[in-house]
Amino acid sequence: MAAQAIPNADDDTGAWRLSRRGRAYSDSAIRALAKRLAQRPDVVSFAGGMPAPETFPREAFARAFDHVLSRDGNAALQYGPTDGYAPLREWIAARLSTPDIRIAPERVLLTSGSQQGLDLLGKVLLGEGDTVAVETPTYLGALQALSQYGPRYLELPCDDGGLDPAALTGPLAAAAGACKFLYTIPTFQNPTGRTLSLARREALVAACRRAGLPIVEDDPYGALDHQGQSHASLLAMDAERVAYLGSFSKVLSPGIRLGYLVSPPALTRRLEQAKQASDLHTSTLLQRVVFEIVKDGFLDTHVQTARALYARHASALDEALHVHLDGHAQWQAPAGGMFLWLRLNRGLDAEALLEPALAAGVAFVPGAPFYADAPDRSTLRLCFSTVGPVAIARGVAALGQVVRAAAELGGA
Amino acid sequence: MAAQAIPNADDDTGAWRLSRRGRAYSDSAIRALAKRLAQRPDVVSFAGGMPAPETFPREAFARAFDHVLSRDGNAALQYGPTDGYAPLREWIAARLSTPDIRIAPERVLLTSGSQQGLDLLGKVLLGEGDTVAVETPTYLGALQALSQYGPRYLELPCDDGGLDPAALTGPLAAAAGACKFLYTIPTFQNPTGRTLSLARREALVAACRRAGLPIVEDDPYGALDHQGQSHASLLAMDAERVAYLGSFSKVLSPGIRLGYLVSPPALTRRLEQAKQASDLHTSTLLQRVVFEIVKDGFLDTHVQTARALYARHASALDEALHVHLDGHAQWQAPAGGMFLWLRLNRGLDAEALLEPALAAGVAFVPGAPFYADAPDRSTLRLCFSTVGPVAIARGVAALGQVVRAAAELGGA
Repeated sequence: MAAQAIPNADDDTGAWRLSRRGRAYSDSAIRALAKRLAQRPDVVSFAGGMPAPETFPREAFARAFDHVLSRDGNAALQYGPTDGYAPLREWIAARLSTPDIRIAPERVLLTSGSQQGLDLLGKVLLGEGDTVAVETPTYLGALQALSQYGPRYLELPCDDGGLDPAALTGPLAAAAGACKFLYTIPTFQNPTGRTLSLARREALVAACRRAGLPIVEDDPYGALDHQGQSHASLLAMDAERVAYLGSFSKVLSPGIRLGYLVSPPALTRRLEQAKQASDLHTSTLLQRVVFEIVKDGFLDTHVQTARALYARHASALDEALHVHLDGHAQWQAPAGGMFLWLRLNRGLDAEALLEPALAAGVAFVPGAPFYADAPDRSTLRLCFSTVGPVAIARGVAALGQVVRAAAELGGA
Repeated sequence: MAAQAIPNADDDTGAWRLSRRGRAYSDSAIRALAKRLAQRPDVVSFAGGMPAPETFPREAFARAFDHVLSRDGNAALQYGPTDGYAPLREWIAARLSTPDIRIAPERVLLTSGSQQGLDLLGKVLLGEGDTVAVETPTYLGALQALSQYGPRYLELPCDDGGLDPAALTGPLAAAAGACKFLYTIPTFQNPTGRTLSLARREALVAACRRAGLPIVEDDPYGALDHQGQSHASLLAMDAERVAYLGSFSKVLSPGIRLGYLVSPPALTRRLEQAKQASDLHTSTLLQRVVFEIVKDGFLDTHVQTARALYARHASALDEALHVHLDGHAQWQAPAGGMFLWLRLNRGLDAEALLEPALAAGVAFVPGAPFYADAPDRSTLRLCFSTVGPVAIARGVAALGQVVRAAAELGGA
C-alpha cells in the first residue's frame, strides 16, 4: 500500500478468501520498527510519534469521569447519536468560528480519532482510479487510510515553507484540478514540522478555489506552537471547500481516540451515514467526559504545559544537532509540534543507517514511507515530544557518530 | 443500500464529488423513526434496540476509572496497540475457550463495537459482486456495514428454530458454497429472537464445512438467556472456519463502544491492518477499565440483573399479546435477548400500521428493512428491554386496537 510496506508472511487465510483490498493491506515499516524498539529500552528513540504522557491531565479526567457517571451515568453509558454529543459539537463549532465566519454545529461530526475522519472521507469520496493531491512528503497514516479506497496520488512540490501554492497555478494546475481533494497539514506538519505562512494559506485557498480542488485540512498540531502563537485555519478562509480534521489526541490524550471532522452540511450528512455503517457512533461516555473537561476553558491553560515542554525538547535537539551534525545534514529549528525533519548530505540513505544507529543506541524513522510516490531517501524524522534533554544529547551524539562514519565510508 | 432506505434530500455536496459508495449511503427508516420518537415521550416505544440503562454498572465503572487513572493513567491515556490491550485479549480468549478447544489470545482483535467488526470483515473479505449468505430476516446494521463493499445477498430459509441447515445441502448448496461467508446470529437473533438448537448448530457447522462456506457468528445476546442457560458457540465447533463477533454492549454498556472479533490468526492479522488504517486502535483507557471490571468474574453475577429484568418484560409482553392479539398475529414467547418478532395475520402490512399506531401511542419497527432482499411485510419487531410491564400493557393494548381495526377494514 504505502511505500516500504512489509509483505505478510502468513498469507494463507484458509477458507477465508480475501478481497482485493484485503490482500493489499500490509504492515508498515514504522510499525515493525516500533515493535523492535519495545524490546530495546536502552535505545534513545526519536522514532515515536506520541505526545508526552506527563502532559496528560489525569486528575481532570478522573474528576470528569466521576462527575459524568454520577450525574448522567445512564445517558453516558447508553447508545448515542452518530453525529456526536450535541454540547461537544457546539463547543467545537464555537471554537473554530472566527469573527469572519461562523461554523455551525451541524457541520461537526465526532470521530474515533482523526484517523477515522480520514477513513470516512475515503469512503464517501474516493473510488478506484481517483487521484488525491498530497504534500511531499506527507503523513503516513493518511496514506494508509486513503489507500484503502484505491486512489493514486499527485505529489505537490514543497519547500521549507511547506506546500508551494504556485504549484497549483503552474504546470500541475490541470492535474491538481482533476484530483478529488488536496490533503494537507498546514501547521507543524507530520513528518516535516513545516508550517504554511498566512500569505501561503491565503494563496493556497484561492488557488484551490480557482482549480475547483477541495481541501482536507488536517490540524492535530495547530495548538502546539512553542511560542503560543495561533495560526489561521484554512477552514476559516473557505468553509464550503475545506473539510477540517481536529483531534484531542495531542492536547488531552490519544488513548481516548477522540477527533472531529468539520465539513459542509451535505457532506457531513454523508460522512455521518458512513460512520453509522462503520461503528454506529463514538463513545458517548468519552464525549461527555471531554466536554466536561474542556467546556470552561481548560484547554487553553492546559496546552501551555505541552508547548513549554516541547519547546525545551526542540531547542535541546536543535542545539545537539548543531554540535554533532553541522555540515552533515540540514534541518529547520522547530517552531511547534513534535517533529524535526533531517536531510542528510552526500546522498546518504537514512534507511541504511537505521541498523548501525540501533546498534549505537539511537532510533529514528527513515523518511521514505512518508512519500506517496518518489521518496527522498536522504531524509529522516526525529520526534522530540517524549525524549528529554539528557537523552536527546546522548541520542544525537550517537546519531552523529553513525552519520559521520557513513559519510567517511561514502567519501572514501 | 438496505431496504426502506430514505433518499438524501440535500444531495448537493458542491465542490465535493462523491464516490459511487458515497452516493449509495442513505438514512434508514428506523433511524428516521427514532428521530420522530425522540419528540414523542408519550408514545410507548417498542421501536428501540437498546439495553435497559438500569442494568449499567455505573458504580463499577466509576471505581474502575478511578483505579486505572490513578494506577496506570499514563499508559491508559497513551496510544496503544491496534490489536488491543493484551490482558483483555487474554481474558476474552480464555472466556471463549472450552474443554474441547483453546482460543489463543492472538486470535482476538478489540473493536469499536461489533459494528466495526462487521465493517472490518467487509473491508478485507468483500468486493463488488461477491455474495454473502444471510438469515431471513437478519440484522439491519450488518446489512448496512457489509453493503458498503458492494456484495449481493443470498437469503437462506429460516423457521421458528432459526436457520435451517438443510438449506445448505439442498438446492441452495451450490449458491451457498460460492458465498464469501454466512452471516448468522445463532442466539436470540435480532430481529426475530430465534435461537438455533444444539443439533442445528452442529448440522450447520458441518454443512458449511462441506460447502466450503466460512461463518461469521454474531453473538451480542448469547449471555441474555432469561433462564441463565448457556448456548454452545459455533466458534467452539470450528475455530478455523468461524469468525466470532462479541460485544460488551448488552452486558456492560453500549455507550463505551467496545466489542471484539475472534478469527484465525492469518485473518486476524489482515483485520488488524485494516483497523490500523481505519482508526489506529480502540480506546486504551476504555479497554483497561473494562478489563478492570470483568477480570474477577463480575460479568457472570452482573448479567443476572439484565436476564431477570428482560425475563419479566418478555413474559409481560407475551401475556399482553395473548390478551390483545390472539388470533390476529403469531409469535414465539422469547427465551432470551431483547426482541419479539410478530407476524400479522390476513396479509396486513406492518409499515402501513405504523402511523395509526403512533397516533394510538405505540411504536414498533416494521420488519421489512431486516430483509436483505424479499421482505415479508406482515412482520414487525418489538423490543422489550427498555419497556416496563405497565407500559407494555398499555402499548400492546394500543397495538391490539390498531391491528384489529385494520383487520376489520381489510376483512370488510
